[in-house]
Amino acid sequence: MTGNCLIAQSGGPTAVINNSLYGIIEESLQSPNIGKVFGARRGVYGLLNQDYIDLSLLSKTQLEMLRMTPGAALGSWRYKLNTREIDIIVAHMQANDIRYFYYIGGNGSMHVAQLIHQAARKKGYDLNVIGVPKTVDNDLTQTDHSPGFGSAAKFLATSILDMSMDIMSSPRSNRITIVETMGRNTGWLAASCALGLKDETGIPMLIYIPESPFSEEKFMHDIRKKYEEHGSALVIVSEGIRNREGKLIAEGSLARDPVGRPQLGGVASYLKELIVKEGSGLSARYILPSIWQRSGMMFSSRVDVEEAYLAGKHACYHARQGINGAMVTIQRSNGTSYSVEYGSVPLTEVAGREKLFPLEWYDADNHFVKNEFLDYLYPLIQGEVSIPMKNGLPAYQHFIS
Amino acid sequence: MTGNCLIAQSGGPTAVINNSLYGIIEESLQSPNIGKVFGARRGVYGLLNQDYIDLSLLSKTQLEMLRMTPGAALGSWRYKLNTREIDIIVAHMQANDIRYFYYIGGNGSMHVAQLIHQAARKKGYDLNVIGVPKTVDNDLTQTDHSPGFGSAAKFLATSILDMSMDIMSSPRSNRITIVETMGRNTGWLAASCALGLKDETGIPMLIYIPESPFSEEKFMHDIRKKYEEHGSALVIVSEGIRNREGKLIAEGSLARDPVGRPQLGGVASYLKELIVKEGSGLSARYILPSIWQRSGMMFSSRVDVEEAYLAGKHACYHARQGINGAMVTIQRSNGTSYSVEYGSVPLTEVAGREKLFPLEWYDADNHFVKNEFLDYLYPLIQGEVSIPMKNGLPAYQHFIS
Repeated sequence: MTGNCLIAQSGGPTAVINNSLYGIIEESLQSPNIGKVFGARRGVYGLLNQDYIDLSLLSKTQLEMLRMTPGAALGSWRYKLNTREIDIIVAHMQANDIRYFYYIGGNGSMHVAQLIHQAARKKGYDLNVIGVPKTVDNDLTQTDHSPGFGSAAKFLATSILDMSMDIMSSPRSNRITIVETMGRNTGWLAASCALGLKDETGIPMLIYIPESPFSEEKFMHDIRKKYEEHGSALVIVSEGIRNREGKLIAEGSLARDPVGRPQLGGVASYLKELIVKEGSGLSARYILPSIWQRSGMMFSSRVDVEEAYLAGKHACYHARQGINGAMVTIQRSNGTSYSVEYGSVPLTEVAGREKLFPLEWYDADNHFVKNEFLDYLYPLIQGEVSIPMKNGLPAYQHFIS
Repeated sequence: MTGNCLIAQSGGPTAVINNSLYGIIEESLQSPNIGKVFGARRGVYGLLNQDYIDLSLLSKTQLEMLRMTPGAALGSWRYKLNTREIDIIVAHMQANDIRYFYYIGGNGSMHVAQLIHQAARKKGYDLNVIGVPKTVDNDLTQTDHSPGFGSAAKFLATSILDMSMDIMSSPRSNRITIVETMGRNTGWLAASCALGLKDETGIPMLIYIPESPFSEEKFMHDIRKKYEEHGSALVIVSEGIRNREGKLIAEGSLARDPVGRPQLGGVASYLKELIVKEGSGLSARYILPSIWQRSGMMFSSRVDVEEAYLAGKHACYHARQGINGAMVTIQRSNGTSYSVEYGSVPLTEVAGREKLFPLEWYDADNHFVKNEFLDYLYPLIQGEVSIPMKNGLPAYQHFIS
């Protein structure tokens, strides 16, 4: 099919999201069937307002710099579309002879991609829609893991390792160190912190994930016990931990985001207060890396950077083969050394679904992960990337404003 | 003077503190006048309990790994000594024929070093006491800057740059992003965040430092204005900001540390609440890097690593020349390119004193720093270090537990 192509990025960005963008641009610019290569500015906003940028105008250097720049270079937007707006988006695509639409995003974005795919089909407009997985949360189903997760996991594990050296400097400090990770409904990132814990430091770690109900009583009991044994402890909490009734810890005080979800980021502060109030002399402090954990490019893993890039390329290969209404998947090959293959899955099978952290990889009594998870995770954080530096800081290049 | 040497680390560690330790060990092992090279375990604790480690037993590889490991490898301890305990410390030194005592620490530690120096002199015990500057806060007087600061500044500036790329992804997000830095009484680290802000992103930044009184009314006014102009803003707050009466923001809710100071780390959470409550629709989130900003080895600057090492070496040179009761200083040379010389200053001139952030480098109306500060800071964050990696994570080696 001959025509133009359109790429959009959506949702929260990652450190490697622009590698997928680069992969699609590179592949599309080489394709004889593709005319113009457009990018939608600010995700849904650009789709809705026909705000497209001609990406073929970017220089080779600009394109290459994309691979070493975190954040969504095309921009993103949180906005809930209605049916009428989906039709407007398709009409804009038709007006611009867009025949290939690539959407880099998470499970919410895959739902939007599916709606666009359906609307085009209903209209009889020949449009090829391919989703490219992207999420630090690792909660997309049907794929072994998602680009973005490995780098965020490496970021967090490194931070734990660094801070362990600091905590080791003052053993028996009577202080609980709390780290709050992202993870609205899933504990993948909180669990990843386990990689940064070295046995030889002797520092105990407790990990709390949204998949396992949180009890304040057990929490206080556990940290008191760890403290008595070791004089310090590291507590990892996913921002989305919930009690037995499914209510977010500290839910009452949370504001709402533009799509109506409670704005997280504050459970560590709540737990610190709890420890100070009920810990009989225990003290606490907390670390909240917030959006840095998804944008810390210097910690990105080479494996993740490469897979994000290849996921973008495979989106184009799939489209060329006539696959439509599907998301690229990463499948881990069997064998002793780590390798992957890129497949596809209908958007309907991933749209709006969530892959929870497997409870069989979680020891809910001791609040720690099992070795099976570490075996799964280690390959994803391997290798480093060298970021071009300028005057002591990374030389990033963003191209929209 | 012939005898043994003793090294201790004190206070909060830094990413480069072990480079000073390495410099002293290296120099002392080569010195014909020095018998044993001891390290005091856990700072004051080791001094007080005669808990010394023989550092000459470390292998060359172990020693070299020190240079690439954050945190105080000898350990540290927060504890307020009394006069009787100072005498005990000196008696232990005498019993072990310690003739050279090197104390790597901040202004509180320099006070302890001075007390030890005085007590030895009073007793007629010939002891050479040299302090080695160490603080991420950069608040030691009489030195152009202190080892540890440059790396923490580079850490924070990089985090701002990374997060700017993320914030740029969602322009006009209506969201204020607050970053809380260390700095109990001084704004050096908060001010350093300015380096990470690139004009081309268009994101406005407001920096609040303890040296300039904080007003909640002006704060809310300023962020509302910035938000109206740009749709987002970065707010940098030093943990120790105070109101016009000198009271810490959110002081009431703060616990105390072992030396009686309020435990900081929470002002960002307080300001987030304030914005949500009074910001008429504005939302906010915060980032709290806490102890990671002083232990994030991967961001350490080559200049800082090298200066920490050379400050350690110069402590030994000074002692050999008969300088006593003094701290090593770093003096910036005049000239167009950056270079430093290492001098010394009596401990009495630094003990317990603080170098505040110069108000002439701060624009209190616009809450931003002036270019003179950026010119001062840039040389200190230059250059990167390559950390040995193992299985995707830094291969640190700590040697006490």
